[in-house]
Order: sequence, then C-alpha cells, then structure tokens
Amino acid sequence: MMRAVDIIRKKRDAAELTREEIEFLIDGATHGSIPDYQLAAFLMAVVWRGMATAELAALTGAMLHSGQILDLSGLRGSKVDKHSTGGVGDKTSLVIAPVVAAAGFDVPLGRKRVFVPMISGRGLGHTGGTLDKLESIPGFDVNLAVDEFQQVLERCGCALIGQTPEIAPADKKLYALRDVTATVESPYLICASIMSKKMAEGIDALVLDVKTGDGAFMKKQEDAEHLARLMVDTGNRMGKKVVALITDMDQPLGRKIGNALEVDECLDVLHGGGPPDLRELCDELAAWMFVLGERTENLEEGRALAAEMIASGRARDTFREIVRAQRGDPGVVDDPGRLPRAKNVAKVKSARAGFVTSIRSEQVGIAGMLIGGGREKKEDAIDPAVGLVMERKIGEAVEAGATLCTVHYNSDARLADAMELLFDSFTIGDAAPAHAPLVRKIITGGDC
Amino acid sequence: MMRAVDIIRKKRDAAELTREEIEFLIDGATHGSIPDYQLAAFLMAVVWRGMATAELAALTGAMLHSGQILDLSGLRGSKVDKHSTGGVGDKTSLVIAPVVAAAGFDVPLGRKRVFVPMISGRGLGHTGGTLDKLESIPGFDVNLAVDEFQQVLERCGCALIGQTPEIAPADKKLYALRDVTATVESPYLICASIMSKKMAEGIDALVLDVKTGDGAFMKKQEDAEHLARLMVDTGNRMGKKVVALITDMDQPLGRKIGNALEVDECLDVLHGGGPPDLRELCDELAAWMFVLGERTENLEEGRALAAEMIASGRARDTFREIVRAQRGDPGVVDDPGRLPRAKNVAKVKSARAGFVTSIRSEQVGIAGMLIGGGREKKEDAIDPAVGLVMERKIGEAVEAGATLCTVHYNSDARLADAMELLFDSFTIGDAAPAHAPLVRKIITGGDC
Repeated sequence: MMRAVDIIRKKRDAAELTREEIEFLIDGATHGSIPDYQLAAFLMAVVWRGMATAELAALTGAMLHSGQILDLSGLRGSKVDKHSTGGVGDKTSLVIAPVVAAAGFDVPLGRKRVFVPMISGRGLGHTGGTLDKLESIPGFDVNLAVDEFQQVLERCGCALIGQTPEIAPADKKLYALRDVTATVESPYLICASIMSKKMAEGIDALVLDVKTGDGAFMKKQEDAEHLARLMVDTGNRMGKKVVALITDMDQPLGRKIGNALEVDECLDVLHGGGPPDLRELCDELAAWMFVLGERTENLEEGRALAAEMIASGRARDTFREIVRAQRGDPGVVDDPGRLPRAKNVAKVKSARAGFVTSIRSEQVGIAGMLIGGGREKKEDAIDPAVGLVMERKIGEAVEAGATLCTVHYNSDARLADAMELLFDSFTIGDAAPAHAPLVRKIITGGDC
Repeated sequence: MMRAVDIIRKKRDAAELTREEIEFLIDGATHGSIPDYQLAAFLMAVVWRGMATAELAALTGAMLHSGQILDLSGLRGSKVDKHSTGGVGDKTSLVIAPVVAAAGFDVPLGRKRVFVPMISGRGLGHTGGTLDKLESIPGFDVNLAVDEFQQVLERCGCALIGQTPEIAPADKKLYALRDVTATVESPYLICASIMSKKMAEGIDALVLDVKTGDGAFMKKQEDAEHLARLMVDTGNRMGKKVVALITDMDQPLGRKIGNALEVDECLDVLHGGGPPDLRELCDELAAWMFVLGERTENLEEGRALAAEMIASGRARDTFREIVRAQRGDPGVVDDPGRLPRAKNVAKVKSARAGFVTSIRSEQVGIAGMLIGGGREKKEDAIDPAVGLVMERKIGEAVEAGATLCTVHYNSDARLADAMELLFDSFTIGDAAPAHAPLVRKIITGGDC
C-alpha cells in the first residue's frame, strides 16, 4: 500500500518519484485524504530537491486532471493562449487577445483561425492582474459559466475569464498551503501551478512571457530562464507547443500602472498609438501566437499580421465585441472617459536634472498598491480608478523640478508613503544608459 | 509581529534563527497556535538546512521549557543519567542504574553520592526499550507519579520510569509529526528531542551511548559521531557535563534479545557473570557516570568502583530494592525462573562449519519483533517472554548443523519468517575476523 510518508522520504532523499506516487499525493490533496502536514513536508522537500522533467510533467498532469479540462475540440482552428509571470504595468493580454482573435482564418492560404481561450488571475502584491483591469470597464463580467465562455470564444475568437472552482482544484489546495509554508518560490511548484491551469484551457499551444528584473518575481535572469525552461519542457512533454520569451521588467511596461489607466493605455495601442515598448512586446507575443497556432508561417509574417490587425481597426472592433459579449460597456472602447477616474492628482518631481538611469520597479508597484490600486492580501478590495503614470522612463531626460510620475488617487491615507517610495524609485544620472532590449531571450522546445 | 511563515522562510534560506523565533515556534507547537502544516514545513527545512549550535541549544531549551523540569536540588549528591540511542540486545540501563546507585558516597574521601533519575522509553521497530524490559518483571510499575519517583530515587539512589505527559510536551507534539512527515532522521531534531527530555530529569551530567553499525539507527560511524557531537555541544551550552561513547552495534550486545531474556542476562551480570561485551560496556558507562558525577577522580577508579559494586553484591542488592520499591517481584533477582518464559524453542542452525564473520543485527532485531518481542507500530502489544539467544557471536567457531540462535516463542504465526531472517543474518566464513573494539570513540565537551 502506498503511504504519503514514504513518498515524502523518497523526495527528501533526492530520489525520483514515479507517476503513480505523484498521482497518489495529488489525489490525496484534492480529496483531503492526505493531511496538510504531509503535503507541507512534501512541498518543502520539493523546494529542496527539485524535480526531474518526468516528475514535473507527472505533477502538472496530476494537478491538471484533478479538475475539469475544457473541451474546445468543437472549435475549428487552433487554440493558443499567452501567460505572463507578472510584472508592473504588464497589460499585454488586453491587446494581444483581440489582435490574435481578429486575424480569423485566411481562406486563400488555407491558414487556421487562432482562438484565444484566456483564463486569467488577479493582482497580488506589487503586480497587477488581468481580471482586475477588465473589471474596471463598467459592467465587464469575468465570471462567465463554462458554456457561455465557449460561446463568447466561438463568436469573438477570444474570451477572458477568471479561474473557475472546477479547474485544477489540486492547485488551489496546494497554492493556499504554499502561501503559508514558505514554499511559493520553488520554480518546480510555480511551473506545475501555471502549466496545470493553462493546460486546463484545452489549448494546443502556449506563449509564455517570463519577466525578469526588479519588477518581476524572478529578479535574476538565470532564475527566469530556469523557470521558462521547466515550463517549455513540461508543456512539450504534455504534447503542447510552448515558447517562452524572457522579457525585461527592470522598468514598468508602458507608462500607465493601475487598472483603469492600463485599460486606457491598451485602448491607445488598439487605436494605433500607445507607448513603443508596450506595442513592441504585444507584437512579439502576438506574432509567436500566430506562429504556434499555424496562422502564419513565420514570425515576420506574424508581426505584420499583428500590425495589420491594429492598423485596420479590426483588433479594436474585436475588443469592442468582447466587451459587449461579456456585458461590459462597449462605449468605453471609443470613449475612454467612461472609465473610472481618480479625483485627485499628485506629482513626484525630480530633484535634479539629468537622465533616468534606473527605476526600482517593485517599489513602484508597491506604491501603486499603497494608494489602493493593488492588494496586499488576497481579500483586500481595490480601487479601479487609481494608479500611476510614469512621465519619465529609463533613458529619458529630465529637468530639475520636472514631473517623474503622476499619482492618480482618491484617498490620501497612504499617499505620503507612496510618494516617498516613488521619489526614491527613480535614479537620475548624468548620462542615459545604453538601451536594453525588451526581449532578452527566447526559449523554445523541441516542437518550436 | 512574528509570523511562522517568515521563520520557515528564513530557515529554508539557510539563515540562522534567533532564540525568540525558535521560542515562538515551539510555544506555538505546544499550545496549538501554529498549525501542523507550518510545523511540518519547518521540520523539513531543518532536515535540509540543519541548525547552528546556538539554534540547536535554543530549540532544545524551548522544548525543555515547554513542560515540567524535575527539581532534584533537594537530593544531596550529583544527578547523572545515561542514555542510549538504541540497539539490539542493548540492556545496559538495568545494570548501570543499580551499579552507580549502589556506590553511595564515600565519606573518607568526601566524594559525592551519584543519583540516577532514569526516564526511559519503549522499544520500537528493531530496537528494544528499557520500560518493556522492566515490565517483564511481574508487578514492576514504570508509571510512578513524580513525587513517588523522587522518593524511590532518594531511597534507592535510582528510579526507572517512563515519560510523563508533563515532560517536554513540545517534543511529543513534534515527534508525532516527524513520524508521519519523514523528518525523524535529522540529527538536529534527534538531538533536541533526546536532550530536552534528558534535561527535564533535573540532571547535572549525562553519559551518552551512541550506537553505530547495522543494528543502530546510525549505520555509519560518521553519522553517529555527528549526532554525538551535537548532543555534547548542546548539553554543554545548557550548562551540563556530557560525554558520548560511540559504541559498536554491528552485532547484538550480549547474547540475549527479548524483554524477560534481557532482564535475565542483566541479572547474570549483577551476579558477577554474564557475557563479556555487556559487562565491559556497563563498566565503561558506569565509570563515566562516576567521573562526571564526581564520585571518582578518574575513569580507572570508576571502573574499579563499578567492578566492586558487582563483586560485592551491592549492585544486585540495590536492584532488588528498586524492584521492590517499584512494586515488582523482588524474588526475581535471585530466582530468574520467576520471569515469564516462552513455551516453545526453535533453533536456527548453521549450514556449514567456520567462523561467524558478521551478523545483520537490524534483521535480528526485526526477527525478534516478528515473534512478538517488539512493536511494529507504537500501539502494538508485546510478549515479554519471547526472544532470541545468540548462541554464536562474531568471531566464534561453529560446526555444520550447530545452533546459531535459539528462538523462544509462543505463537508460530510469523515464526517461519523470523527463522528465515535469522538464518540469513549470519555470515559464516573460513576465518575469524579481527576483533573490533566495543567502544569506538569517546566524544567529550569543554567540561569533560
């Protein structure tokens, strides 16, 4: 008879677990037949010893199969999602989903339509979450039932919802335990958590945006690359095409941070404007989705197709349709003034002239949280209207007394702390630093 | 505010915990304010990262102070105990306690009396326990209340009881958790568990018998030495004199294994006979207790005093007194036939002539357990009468068909398995191996 204590001991002693042993543990976690203290000891042993590729695929598979897996086989086309490990001002989903969905199929070339079944999360700590951003659009409903989700997906080519209780319940269980046992940071456990939920979307391929830098969870690029490699290998083992882009999070993406402000900036992009770094990253990620979804033959064509979807207004039209289908106010798309807006504005000013040489992005994210735009704890309420506008980014010149950052706030309860953090986040030097590339590395698996 | 998750994270990241952090955890374990899953994750992190000397002393101290500490300051003399990490046929306590207690004080030389307040455990797995052995003496009561324990101790110079619920409740809590989370084997956790319970006896000094070899928990001598060093250093930090003898457990100690059989063999020693290895180890351990308890100036004198206590019959008289004081049948001491005796005898015979070159002692212990002499699980009942007599030990000559081991049994339910294990445990070679010393190493602290 299998016993949890023997499996824990095996992992503690760095031996490789069998698929059956891992399934026994995850089944026990899901159904409560293995007590939390044994799961906690196991999780710490995994933090310590890591997991081999086969173990990690088995863990991910067991977590995936602990719940519902969407069956999108009825949709004619490929199903591709994008997932980001999270950052500050990281808002690409709201652009990419309509861009990719808008491309439809290409009859003359016989190219597939790419569906984007996007199940997203909420913000926590210094990072934001797609669901919170979407909910700043009046009426937008992220809690669609599965059949409605599939209907929107079929009609619009994309749908954006939150986790359902039916998806990967083992992950919910383990995540809650990891949170209180200091076992969150293991790349193996992060990989299994992310990949089990993404695989439950019924996708064929996945594009990963693995952030690295001060505003990311993985501060060091080698850690980001390690996690990316684990996720790509795990996805490949499970028969999915996966690519990971290691991208810069040493400064916030775009200029706006905060839920309604980020929707506003995404609308800028969908109208053909917006900050160049955000546009570039959206184009790259969308291009990879087109390639993996077999909509274009190569990245170059993918980038061109993404640009065309924006220039033609088709991505914007698709986004308007999505908002309408998910019960949001479609008028927002052409009139961002309908988004919630904070009552007050404060300005963080530069003490000297020079060039911005670095931005402590985690601190910037925390400042946004302090004024009510993010959550310290899962249960916290957020204010969709508040946020920050980065008036200067790395490499840009600034005069003494010029504004570095505008703070949009409603309550001044923790404003002073936020202002101080923001002031402290900017380093001003005498010369602009060399331009750092946005996409630092691309990690592909056997199938890409 | 202190949070368990932060302390777990700190240990996970190999940082040294403060005394306050360790006390917070142990207090939370004792009073149930820290959930088991956090304790389990912490325990696994300790298995991984170990503990610095100061941390280990703080952990041991916190566990000690989670419960009652005996106050033996009313007894005029030093209080010294002996603790063994456990082995097969390991029965020295029953000889040493009366030997040391019998020595009394030495008025002409102004030497102290040494009291032996011995709180022991039960057998588990392949090893036996002092309490089980004592209980094979009809009527012997190991469950004395604390005040009665102190009375017997004062009168006889020694008393032998089991754990009380008041002693180190944090250890009881953590031990139960370690048992099911594969965190038993950490030398740091073993050290804190043993030392917190021993310190609760109100002793001034402790002699440790750390077993190594196939029949011990620490198969490798380096592991035994590491544990010994941790225990000596921890005891010293807590102001106690501690010495550890690393002793051989590559074969059972003495010839008899099983509860009544081991009492019988101890009575042989107290009557001036018994197997030489058992006598030697009892003399060494008692001599160290005399030295640490300041009863003799040096080991040589200690050995002589121990020998005198046996030769004069005073140790035997003291043992008889202890048995009477603890409600056992004192007639057993001069008539071992009053001990329970198994109904049947079976013999494991040698397939060839030669010399015994090795004995797989853990297997021998398991065979003893299979016939009912030990416990697989804590809840199991044991049969005090059954056991094994090693008719041949390492280095001894044997003819083909001669008996290697006599099995004393009542039920033949698992006899065949036990016989097979025993047969398989003996290796017979062409020549006797070199004699291995019984005491392999002595580890002393700053005060010894």
